[in-house]
Amino acid sequence: MDRFGIAVADINGEVYGVGDWEVPFSVQSISKTFSLALVMANDNDDIWKRVGREPSGTPFNSLVQLEWENGVPRNPFINAGALVVTDRLQTLTGDASTTMLHFLREESGNPDLAFDQAVADSEADHGDRNAALAHFMASFGNLENPVPSVIEHYFWQCSIEMSCRDLAAAGGFLARHGLRADGSRLLEAREAKRINAVMLTCGTYDAAGEFAYRVGLPAKSGVGGGIVAVVPGRCTLCVWSPGLDRRGNSVAGAAALDHFTTLTGWSVF
Amino acid sequence: MDRFGIAVADINGEVYGVGDWEVPFSVQSISKTFSLALVMANDNDDIWKRVGREPSGTPFNSLVQLEWENGVPRNPFINAGALVVTDRLQTLTGDASTTMLHFLREESGNPDLAFDQAVADSEADHGDRNAALAHFMASFGNLENPVPSVIEHYFWQCSIEMSCRDLAAAGGFLARHGLRADGSRLLEAREAKRINAVMLTCGTYDAAGEFAYRVGLPAKSGVGGGIVAVVPGRCTLCVWSPGLDRRGNSVAGAAALDHFTTLTGWSVF
Amino acid sequence: MDRFGIAVADINGEVYGVGDWEVPFSVQSISKTFSLALVMANDNDDIWKRVGREPSGTPFNSLVQLEWENGVPRNPFINAGALVVTDRLQTLTGDASTTMLHFLREESGNPDLAFDQAVADSEADHGDRNAALAHFMASFGNLENPVPSVIEHYFWQCSIEMSCRDLAAAGGFLARHGLRADGSRLLEAREAKRINAVMLTCGTYDAAGEFAYRVGLPAKSGVGGGIVAVVPGRCTLCVWSPGLDRRGNSVAGAAALDHFTTLTGWSVF
Amino acid sequence: MDRFGIAVADINGEVYGVGDWEVPFSVQSISKTFSLALVMANDNDDIWKRVGREPSGTPFNSLVQLEWENGVPRNPFINAGALVVTDRLQTLTGDASTTMLHFLREESGNPDLAFDQAVADSEADHGDRNAALAHFMASFGNLENPVPSVIEHYFWQCSIEMSCRDLAAAGGFLARHGLRADGSRLLEAREAKRINAVMLTCGTYDAAGEFAYRVGLPAKSGVGGGIVAVVPGRCTLCVWSPGLDRRGNSVAGAAALDHFTTLTGWSVF
Repeated sequence: MDRFGIAVADINGEVYGVGDWEVPFSVQSISKTFSLALVMANDNDDIWKRVGREPSGTPFNSLVQLEWENGVPRNPFINAGALVVTDRLQTLTGDASTTMLHFLREESGNPDLAFDQAVADSEADHGDRNAALAHFMASFGNLENPVPSVIEHYFWQCSIEMSCRDLAAAGGFLARHGLRADGSRLLEAREAKRINAVMLTCGTYDAAGEFAYRVGLPAKSGVGGGIVAVVPGRCTLCVWSPGLDRRGNSVAGAAALDHFTTLTGWSVF
Repeated sequence: MDRFGIAVADINGEVYGVGDWEVPFSVQSISKTFSLALVMANDNDDIWKRVGREPSGTPFNSLVQLEWENGVPRNPFINAGALVVTDRLQTLTGDASTTMLHFLREESGNPDLAFDQAVADSEADHGDRNAALAHFMASFGNLENPVPSVIEHYFWQCSIEMSCRDLAAAGGFLARHGLRADGSRLLEAREAKRINAVMLTCGTYDAAGEFAYRVGLPAKSGVGGGIVAVVPGRCTLCVWSPGLDRRGNSVAGAAALDHFTTLTGWSVF
Repeated sequence: MDRFGIAVADINGEVYGVGDWEVPFSVQSISKTFSLALVMANDNDDIWKRVGREPSGTPFNSLVQLEWENGVPRNPFINAGALVVTDRLQTLTGDASTTMLHFLREESGNPDLAFDQAVADSEADHGDRNAALAHFMASFGNLENPVPSVIEHYFWQCSIEMSCRDLAAAGGFLARHGLRADGSRLLEAREAKRINAVMLTCGTYDAAGEFAYRVGLPAKSGVGGGIVAVVPGRCTLCVWSPGLDRRGNSVAGAAALDHFTTLTGWSVF
Repeated sequence: MDRFGIAVADINGEVYGVGDWEVPFSVQSISKTFSLALVMANDNDDIWKRVGREPSGTPFNSLVQLEWENGVPRNPFINAGALVVTDRLQTLTGDASTTMLHFLREESGNPDLAFDQAVADSEADHGDRNAALAHFMASFGNLENPVPSVIEHYFWQCSIEMSCRDLAAAGGFLARHGLRADGSRLLEAREAKRINAVMLTCGTYDAAGEFAYRVGLPAKSGVGGGIVAVVPGRCTLCVWSPGLDRRGNSVAGAAALDHFTTLTGWSVF
């Protein structure tokens, strides 16, 4: 629990880091940012007919909101929404998890990135809640692929192992207003800004308001202890430290980002 | 419904505008931004023990969330939260609504600002829902003053009449990182940024995510048809047009702000 | 907490009892049965346009259900529903609490029954939750009288002091299919049966299913520790013991009724 | 939609009927009464550790209540609860649906009763919502068998075709305080009464209170248009008419039962 790393990738692709910044960890929910970007790159705004953009309120209400809103999840970063995004990526590409793995290898410049089979299998063993969400959305007609296939690709995506260095580099397109590492365009500037907006309002579970208040940057966290944050036009950061608060965000990671924006004044506000 | 005005106040206090930018309208919920600022100026962070900073999810859930979270409203911009903030301002100043009126007169440079008694009375006639919220919070011990007094000051604050010009000028401290029109400090830079963060995540009713996605600026709307938005370090805007969407935000006002950030590239993302 | 009394009133008006059966206690929610009967006696079925007949699910959901169902409480035995019934009795009689007191004096044959002013005042001091419910229903147009007046009469009704003897006698009309102690008709047989049905499905807070399962009799409990139960066509019982379970029902009282139906076989099932 | 049948089985096993009383229809949710009885016959009270006995409030809340109560359904007659009962019957017998079919053949005296494969298959094609419920409960550890197996047996049970005659006869043990058609004991008298209590408080979807109020008998309805009702100690009825109200209960069937209790005075109240 006392491990900590931080990496900063500037918009030219240079990455700097300290601490355990090259130690790989499980990206978990951070993968939701990349699957959303890949779907938006292929599909323009169509995904927003199937998933909303509003924060989700308390976790306690997630299921009732899904029912209340006819199977349309509130945003792409809660599990239900991420399943819809993965489902769409599967339809668009025929292999959602491999598509993401190849994208992350290219953007991070690390050809050794891989799925962690043990992690994916372990999640599958405890996947009843995600299966419940997927079947529930299917009952509203909001899934295009069979539930087991969607669940499987979702777990594989979450199981990818990356370091702070890898993630800061791979998230560079969010700071470069949509340009990939090789200078080609993944997303329109407008689209990249919009992913940042969704990260800021929905990226850190039920603590998005708290995170915006303290840190003031778009960010996406994962239960592996990683957090990716963006200073638009300047840099992408990734922090990692395994100890989580009760909402599922890295305690030391959030504190480091708070400190970072206080020192640099680089909060978006 | 075809009236429209927009005003921009730069950080030096110059205000420019077009259309009906000098026509007064009822500030309504925009007043919640000012009562929050006045409480934070006097009370540091204590208010956050009595009100949260998280978006509220669907309006449908507002009461159940209040019960679930023991009478602590999710944020200061839903009605329950604003009642708590007004209650605190009343305790701190002895006269919450007059304190706000004087502050708005000074910051806008318009000594003629006044309450609209007819509007305040009309709201009092239909105030059962706010009375319900206030009594409910009182049952959890989260009000310091008698319910009728809190409700009354809340309605007076909402009834203040201001134009786009007045509001853009009065909200200048949010773009100036806490400095008032006369150069004195109302809030620490950190505190002003944090109010901007709460505006971005919670300022436009149940459309905050949508608003961040399309406009990308901290903003607070009111059912009078006004919206105040902030470009930190640059300017404060106010748009006004009475036609509202189903969430209570000005349709033409939101479109104008969307257009503005697309043209200028001044989204915070 | 070790006090216990039980009384049985047969349909001829004879009352038998053991233990503390003549000790007065606060009737509290048991009064809801009598206010419902008095409204139905005057108003036929009109009250059912303003209050439902369905069990209310978890207490946690009570407010959200009230919102979901447009201010119409689920049944007359939850607080919101009882406030509507008292409001109607107030409209019909001009003095809801005095009307009930006189009725209870006549049916019990005890002219000394009285309000307990200290109890009523104490509830008024902590009445914020009931005030919240009343204002909330008023916001939906489901109250005919001013909130403070409805609340006051409601508290007075709850504060009446009666013994097991008094309550078993006063509830005799429920076993006599609507006939009062003097043989005159208060309710149609059909109406009396229907009050018994509402008691069985909704009369013991969130434990009505459990109570039907164990005891099998229509019953209404109060937080004063009393429970009135009905064996239709045979007798009315009242038990009293102050220790409550987590749902607000008398522990020893429920156990005594369970024992009674097991011994006699007089469950309605 | 203009078909109608009614059958009455007295406690000696004689069955009388009029109209379409010998036309088979799909038992659907009426099967939940029989699976509960079969589990209680084998398992005493253990099932109540895994399913509650309280009415469920609005259908809207069913999922949130399941979450709020840690995967324990409110009662055995909502779908979630029936899945738990079927799961337990599967564990106890190794073949839940065949066990029920054999039981129903014996009690009805009709050896031709059979599953309707087309109905079972059709439900499986649209079974996402039940799969969601089952996975959700599995995530709380409240299923003993694999989700697909539980779902399959549940659908088979619902698909059994029976007439009013068959169902009135098969439900005879509920009027005979637990004695089977051949005089042997299926359930203790206490247990049979308790199933009647659960039927009265929870047997007709979200209209149990309304049903108790109007009809005053323990009853269980199904979306096939059938309703089984019990006059304890006297007879078991079954009505059938396909037109359903918005809660899923047969309109003509409920009216017929209302008429029956008004004429006979055989309401339990």
